[in-house]
Amino acid sequence: MKIIRDPLELKRYLKDKKNSIGFVPTMGALHEGHIALIKKAREENEKVVVSIFVNPTQFSKGEDFSKYPKKDEADKKICAMSGVDVLFFPDAKAIYHDDEVSLLAPKVRGFVLEGLTRPSHFNGVLTVVMKLLNIVNPTKAYFGKKDAQQLNLISLMVKQMFMSVEIVAIDTVRESDGLALSSRNIYLSRTQRLEALKISSSLHLATKLIRKNILDVGEIKKQIRETLEPLEIFYVEILNRDFEMIKKVEVQNSVVLIEVKVGSTRLLDNIWI
Amino acid sequence: MKIIRDPLELKRYLKDKKNSIGFVPTMGALHEGHIALIKKAREENEKVVVSIFVNPTQFSKGEDFSKYPKKDEADKKICAMSGVDVLFFPDAKAIYHDDEVSLLAPKVRGFVLEGLTRPSHFNGVLTVVMKLLNIVNPTKAYFGKKDAQQLNLISLMVKQMFMSVEIVAIDTVRESDGLALSSRNIYLSRTQRLEALKISSSLHLATKLIRKNILDVGEIKKQIRETLEPLEIFYVEILNRDFEMIKKVEVQNSVVLIEVKVGSTRLLDNIWI
Repeated sequence: MKIIRDPLELKRYLKDKKNSIGFVPTMGALHEGHIALIKKAREENEKVVVSIFVNPTQFSKGEDFSKYPKKDEADKKICAMSGVDVLFFPDAKAIYHDDEVSLLAPKVRGFVLEGLTRPSHFNGVLTVVMKLLNIVNPTKAYFGKKDAQQLNLISLMVKQMFMSVEIVAIDTVRESDGLALSSRNIYLSRTQRLEALKISSSLHLATKLIRKNILDVGEIKKQIRETLEPLEIFYVEILNRDFEMIKKVEVQNSVVLIEVKVGSTRLLDNIWI
Repeated sequence: MKIIRDPLELKRYLKDKKNSIGFVPTMGALHEGHIALIKKAREENEKVVVSIFVNPTQFSKGEDFSKYPKKDEADKKICAMSGVDVLFFPDAKAIYHDDEVSLLAPKVRGFVLEGLTRPSHFNGVLTVVMKLLNIVNPTKAYFGKKDAQQLNLISLMVKQMFMSVEIVAIDTVRESDGLALSSRNIYLSRTQRLEALKISSSLHLATKLIRKNILDVGEIKKQIRETLEPLEIFYVEILNRDFEMIKKVEVQNSVVLIEVKVGSTRLLDNIWI
């Protein structure tokens, strides 16, 4: 496995390649969720590139940027063992310049849900993802469905900006008890870890209601909120897969999204109905 | 010459080409300045693509978007006669979507000079140029030095976003009396046309002063302003070629920039020292 730190060196290195390239951008602290992305990229492409970059611009003040989990050595081993060809490990200084051009998230879809409480978050995500995609110029790029709004906005960016990459969405990987894998789960105490199970339970409840043909968005949201109690809820929302408001669940075209705070940790989850 | 209106059709058409592509994005109403860009693109590339698109998002309210000169048939003839291979002529609906991701110009360099009086102008320029570059995916793209700040910001975007295109800057083409060619010159009455000559005269004066080793930016700006009287001045500025403030002219690394209003027409000009 080749490790490259300089973006222009990586761009030159990959430019001459005539192979299909599968790209998995990450912030490191890799877990089974990331490994599922790498595995799919390995199956579908001749070359696999993984980036590890904790992007400062998607954290707001007071968020966990400085203490975001770092596991560089373990991450390298995971990549090497998963058949990654190139690991891209840039410094922030190589990615960001002074007085920058940046991406601005869509005015409606970028500033609801997670974007409501973290208003500059998706601007930072889109800016860094565009930079990384332009450096690697992959055939396909792999993102987890767990960050559903991020996935939606990246897909919109690729379409609206006429970028050449294909975005591939990969199912959320869960612990055996249902908790969605996240690098932030290590922040949870044992008690919090148990409380956090209410998230996947409430999504499970939503699925059951919909199977019983209860499709009223207001009713399902109410029951989810009851199940989540007493957790602090950022949002419970049910949207169509274009992330537009709906009143009745459209089966095969809806997403149920939840964000809560457990202790001081934000946890996201969702289910695609 | 092939004429294509649909961006995805153009993207597919050019994707299979293994040739070098020279790209000249324009807003139509083509004149000798555009022809100089096309000529250079023709010399340096196997295929030449020209786009004609009057980009709505770079005009502010009250500006001349709806009456911007349109000369579609003449433009097509000029392109065909200049050896253009593909003319891209999209509808605004094919370029812009609802609730869009967009580019945000750099906070310092994007909101001075022309960006000061037209605060959303460069956001619109950068957004459309990125879309066009991603559709065409050219080897080189050609821009006039007359829109010097635009050229600077597009070059910054390409560098900061790690885009693959090479930006080529082409000298301003002038009438025999010195007036810089612009599609907006047709707005000028005969009297205004004469008044507008003060712009190139004042740039000529700046060159003379600098040749006499008068390098103090304040002094040169003062004399330019006196020459421009009684025209309404938006700005007279002397910057280094990274568009940063300087106190003394750096020969081979400076730009003198002027924007004035003649009647109701904004006119830009500059000279690279």
